[in-house]
Amino acid sequence: MTAVGIDAIEIRTGKLRLDLPNTFAPKKGEDPEKYTKGLGLEASSFPDVYEDIVTMGANAAKRLMDRKGIAPEDVGRIDVATESAFDHAKPVSTYIAGCLEQVYDGDFRHANKGERKFACVAGTQAIDDAYNWIRAGRNRGRSALVIATDTALYERGDPGEATQGAGAVAMLVDEDPSIVELSTDQGYGSMDETDFLKPNQQFPSVDGKRSVQVYLSRMREALEDYEAVAGPVGVEDVSYAPFHTPFPGMVRKAGLFAYRHITRDSPVEDEIAAAIGRRQPREDEYDSREAYEEAIREYMDELKGAEQYREWYAETIEPTLELSRVVGNWYTGSVHLARASALRHAAARGLDSEFVGRRLLVGSYGSGAQAEIHAETVRDGWREEIEALDIDDQLESRYDLAFEEYEQVHDVHDFDKSVEVEELTAPEAEFVFTGWGRMNERTYEYVE
Amino acid sequence: MTAVGIDAIEIRTGKLRLDLPNTFAPKKGEDPEKYTKGLGLEASSFPDVYEDIVTMGANAAKRLMDRKGIAPEDVGRIDVATESAFDHAKPVSTYIAGCLEQVYDGDFRHANKGERKFACVAGTQAIDDAYNWIRAGRNRGRSALVIATDTALYERGDPGEATQGAGAVAMLVDEDPSIVELSTDQGYGSMDETDFLKPNQQFPSVDGKRSVQVYLSRMREALEDYEAVAGPVGVEDVSYAPFHTPFPGMVRKAGLFAYRHITRDSPVEDEIAAAIGRRQPREDEYDSREAYEEAIREYMDELKGAEQYREWYAETIEPTLELSRVVGNWYTGSVHLARASALRHAAARGLDSEFVGRRLLVGSYGSGAQAEIHAETVRDGWREEIEALDIDDQLESRYDLAFEEYEQVHDVHDFDKSVEVEELTAPEAEFVFTGWGRMNERTYEYVE
Repeated sequence: MTAVGIDAIEIRTGKLRLDLPNTFAPKKGEDPEKYTKGLGLEASSFPDVYEDIVTMGANAAKRLMDRKGIAPEDVGRIDVATESAFDHAKPVSTYIAGCLEQVYDGDFRHANKGERKFACVAGTQAIDDAYNWIRAGRNRGRSALVIATDTALYERGDPGEATQGAGAVAMLVDEDPSIVELSTDQGYGSMDETDFLKPNQQFPSVDGKRSVQVYLSRMREALEDYEAVAGPVGVEDVSYAPFHTPFPGMVRKAGLFAYRHITRDSPVEDEIAAAIGRRQPREDEYDSREAYEEAIREYMDELKGAEQYREWYAETIEPTLELSRVVGNWYTGSVHLARASALRHAAARGLDSEFVGRRLLVGSYGSGAQAEIHAETVRDGWREEIEALDIDDQLESRYDLAFEEYEQVHDVHDFDKSVEVEELTAPEAEFVFTGWGRMNERTYEYVE
Repeated sequence: MTAVGIDAIEIRTGKLRLDLPNTFAPKKGEDPEKYTKGLGLEASSFPDVYEDIVTMGANAAKRLMDRKGIAPEDVGRIDVATESAFDHAKPVSTYIAGCLEQVYDGDFRHANKGERKFACVAGTQAIDDAYNWIRAGRNRGRSALVIATDTALYERGDPGEATQGAGAVAMLVDEDPSIVELSTDQGYGSMDETDFLKPNQQFPSVDGKRSVQVYLSRMREALEDYEAVAGPVGVEDVSYAPFHTPFPGMVRKAGLFAYRHITRDSPVEDEIAAAIGRRQPREDEYDSREAYEEAIREYMDELKGAEQYREWYAETIEPTLELSRVVGNWYTGSVHLARASALRHAAARGLDSEFVGRRLLVGSYGSGAQAEIHAETVRDGWREEIEALDIDDQLESRYDLAFEEYEQVHDVHDFDKSVEVEELTAPEAEFVFTGWGRMNERTYEYVE
């Protein structure tokens, strides 16, 4: 069976930067470590006044097409995943295709365009749709362009305000892919939950405590469901575990849960028991569910300090958080940033062909709520593709917002406000938002 | 290759009815024939105050599950297509799953839930996703529940007001299906268009004239693209052609275009030429594009009156409009109503096993804009499934709205208004909307 997976990735960050410890924390009268240590965040990426989900997605897609030498004719499908849409009927993918058609010969007339919504998990769902489309023999030799794009803004003063972010990840899904092959096997944990929602409103209502519980429960179920079809996952099977990262502190919790799960009944559990003096609690050893859960909590507290766990976390999870730390939450793009972070880490460690064939365990999550777990196998073009990313240059050249500028830019992107604010950066060789047309549609053009 | 397609269908209409010639036309001071002859519409279905996209979708899904003896465990995927969503992050499929979990043992924890948006074409896209998921070998023996649900409301006084409608179509996509097998071949016609959109607004902005042109152009491209992969479509290949039906008058135009296309260079073209005295104009016979287009218009005017065309239209297109005529536009559900209408017509004609293996040519369309064409082959359980529909009973028992009641109910479903209106029908053995929860989420319960 021909491998199907991710052939190319491009990342496009919003061009502004909000410094959390140095700009945000002082204004909020908070200890900077609340953000850097607690949430694990240094900065958020923000869109300038001429950026939005369309421009970021189109700019990522354009760089991908240019770099890979792809014409519209080669793309059979454009799927956008977002929870920041500005139209209830017309999908963002049509706007992005319209942008790209301004600069390429030919058009995307033949390409199936779509939009998926399920909080932050929709980017992975869109990749899955593309994978299935190819496996179903319907792609007619063409590849799929999947774009996860969001402006993850919160109401000013909301506890989520510190976790904001904005950016897009464009991915080319194709046969015989350069970066990773996707597993056919998938695991799901999905329940109707009221943890985070946007009922007829742009900014989310969040039950923070519930949201953390739901993330962990759905991820556990997805992992169990994945193992039910793919067989048990062992520590040695996984080089990196990129998870959805609403903020790195969340993944710290998830990593500990995942490690406990995948080491249970393995030799690693015994090694750890030799170090911390106990094996994992089993429910049948306890009289009540409460006693068992208390024992789990105690075990996890000790596990956190165990050398085996700390090494695993440092090698397998920590490297996936690198980009999130400096850009914030990109919603649908977040888990795809985590994958890119992991691959960048592998390249920085000097890995090359010895990394081919190694596995990533990818954990996607969307509030509302659903987790999906699948595996990805590294392919032999991975290093060249990852080294082609220009995200470091983009991050370097972000404009550093003063707090008052942040307030103004937040207002610009608030659908309920109408303010005129000067752009803070100069657009160059990119798609920009230019205003509204006669039917209140957003309009775009390419600036040389 | 095992057949994959639609195994079961359920249709759920809104429980109120707005009579266009007798209630709407007099209030608007219009000739009733503007609606019955021009648009081809007799009535619209409307949701009662306790109905919405979730209740209609869940009620259709419940009847489907009950009738087919399906438990949550048997469903691996719940996809909802809608352009009437009330949340920007949490998908409607989670709400519908939550409803169903109130009445069934077990849950949909293992099921991938999603939401697709692309105006009216998203229902077909969701069916395609399900088809591809099964073909990709990812369904683990489970089937997919696809639900197209919309409340297609317009601003009061908008020209589209007469084409409103509300209802849901639930479909089970599975291996070895009872009703139709879907073709692997598909054709697309898809361009970034500003014909109908809902920019941060519940009710659409529509450029009616442009919308008609775009519908016809995208459908033509999709048919050409379909033929490029599946080979030429001939008149004799197609028993019915269910098209997206914003209103039956639109499909009348589309049918004429389609007929001209599929008869070109066929013996039928010669037969018609013998009757009307001319063959179809070919572009190279004309000095200018304008002259050619003028000749096409003239040919089409004559073709409309040709007996061959009239017979074909009466047999192949007209029967697909039966349900639309009395329920209006259901957006994502519309083309699926057209398919159901066609199959009901075949059953009413007394067809049974001789209809197995016959083809439907299905033309889906969404503004913004994209058309998709594929073929469906009738399977040997078709008649039993179609006869199990209870849509006639539902239509019969709709509450007939007085104009003032229509105005009140329209306000109830307007997101920007907050009015208290008494229900006009009594809920029985169905899911109903009960209000809003602590995070402004919509809440539902099953009424015995």
